[in-house]
Amino acid sequence: MTYWEVKQLFSMESRAGVAATPGALPYYVALSQLLGLTVVAMTGAWLGLYRGGIAWEGALQFNVHPLCMVIGLIFLQGDALLVYRVFRNEAKRTTKVLHGLLHVLALIIALVGLVAVFNYHRQKGYSDLYSLHSWCGILVFVLYFVQWLVGFSFFLFPGASFSLRSRYRPQHVFFGATIFVLSVGTALLGLKEALLFKLGAKYSTFEAEGVLANVLGLLLASFGVTVLYILTRADWKRPPQAEEQALSMDFKTLTEGDSPSSQ
Amino acid sequence: MTYWEVKQLFSMESRAGVAATPGALPYYVALSQLLGLTVVAMTGAWLGLYRGGIAWEGALQFNVHPLCMVIGLIFLQGDALLVYRVFRNEAKRTTKVLHGLLHVLALIIALVGLVAVFNYHRQKGYSDLYSLHSWCGILVFVLYFVQWLVGFSFFLFPGASFSLRSRYRPQHVFFGATIFVLSVGTALLGLKEALLFKLGAKYSTFEAEGVLANVLGLLLASFGVTVLYILTRADWKRPPQAEEQALSMDFKTLTEGDSPSSQ
Repeated sequence: MTYWEVKQLFSMESRAGVAATPGALPYYVALSQLLGLTVVAMTGAWLGLYRGGIAWEGALQFNVHPLCMVIGLIFLQGDALLVYRVFRNEAKRTTKVLHGLLHVLALIIALVGLVAVFNYHRQKGYSDLYSLHSWCGILVFVLYFVQWLVGFSFFLFPGASFSLRSRYRPQHVFFGATIFVLSVGTALLGLKEALLFKLGAKYSTFEAEGVLANVLGLLLASFGVTVLYILTRADWKRPPQAEEQALSMDFKTLTEGDSPSSQ
Repeated sequence: MTYWEVKQLFSMESRAGVAATPGALPYYVALSQLLGLTVVAMTGAWLGLYRGGIAWEGALQFNVHPLCMVIGLIFLQGDALLVYRVFRNEAKRTTKVLHGLLHVLALIIALVGLVAVFNYHRQKGYSDLYSLHSWCGILVFVLYFVQWLVGFSFFLFPGASFSLRSRYRPQHVFFGATIFVLSVGTALLGLKEALLFKLGAKYSTFEAEGVLANVLGLLLASFGVTVLYILTRADWKRPPQAEEQALSMDFKTLTEGDSPSSQ
């Protein structure tokens, strides 16, 4: 049992299960949202200023791809990971459903982004799936979909047993964080590809577009690091709720971090 | 106290402090080493087969850069992170010194790689530090150096107090893992840059060099994921040693993961 959980137990007796939010957490969450929204806005600005904007027809269809991927697989995926830290005192089931829904929304938007780029390639007669960015991207998308299906059948579908859920949970968390990191990495590869194809040797003359895209790349990485920091800080994990605690307390003292109430 | 630590306590009484290694750990460590060595060999093969090999003079000096970075900031940095998982029953101090030394070696090799690319740029009259790869790279190198200095002054230099070390430890672990992930990401950006500058539109015809480099990129990412999996699995953390346990046991039951013996 951690120091924090001991404090929890005492404070819960006097305050009927409503846990205090750790002092610095809201500032880190605010920072993550500021970075996430800046990344989305800056991707839009980049496409608007230097790439002619967005349309579903013609050459501009390509631009749907980076925008959808950044909204879906970066911003919404990142926020879905933070749900358990932000909604600390909601019922576990509500939080779980929100986590699942944000991931579905991210998947759908990412799928639109994928369709856009394959459509664009077909129109232009370009080959598909030849670059490292595309290999990583397809891999990430398939892993993300599989993770969602497996997560759904373990945690939302009512069949899985308590011990099965407890055993799968650490794997779900590790692979969730990994797929998120791979998504950020894939976005950086795509950004680099888009820059080099268009700018070529002009990239080295510090063209405005190159500098803007480099800053966007650093902000993408910063969003990823901030989300992972919030996610992995041990004392910021979701506290056990009163109703869950009664069920799992004895189990918890033996297995600690693996218990289903400390997701 | 985790289930594993409880088991530890019992087994230690009968076996004088020698802890059993978790069953699957050696296989994952073997996989990480196989991936790491393959990545180094494949980088060498790529430079030898498609880039004319390596030399300190002339145009081939550039090739020193990717090879040194992959050996230093990928393979050796990754292995330095695994030291506490692999050497589970050595004295804490020995393991710590090995961790610090591997990081020093990685830093020196990375510095040689940095000097090589700046030298090459100067000879050719190219601009420095214009690309996203170079921005990420310089940032990672500076963060890595700072992390080493701060880590050294907290953990190896004998001044820092017990409670100061305990408070800094989770930060050191998080930023260590983050810098490693950023190193892998930066390597992928560099690989992509090297490919696009040379192959250009030929990249899309599935040239042998492009396919080889894509596979190298996926292997780099796989090495990163495997190292992080070994590092973050809760039940694979380094067990407390008998001599440390006597000192920190009471403290541990209150603070759990933050205790200095569960690095």
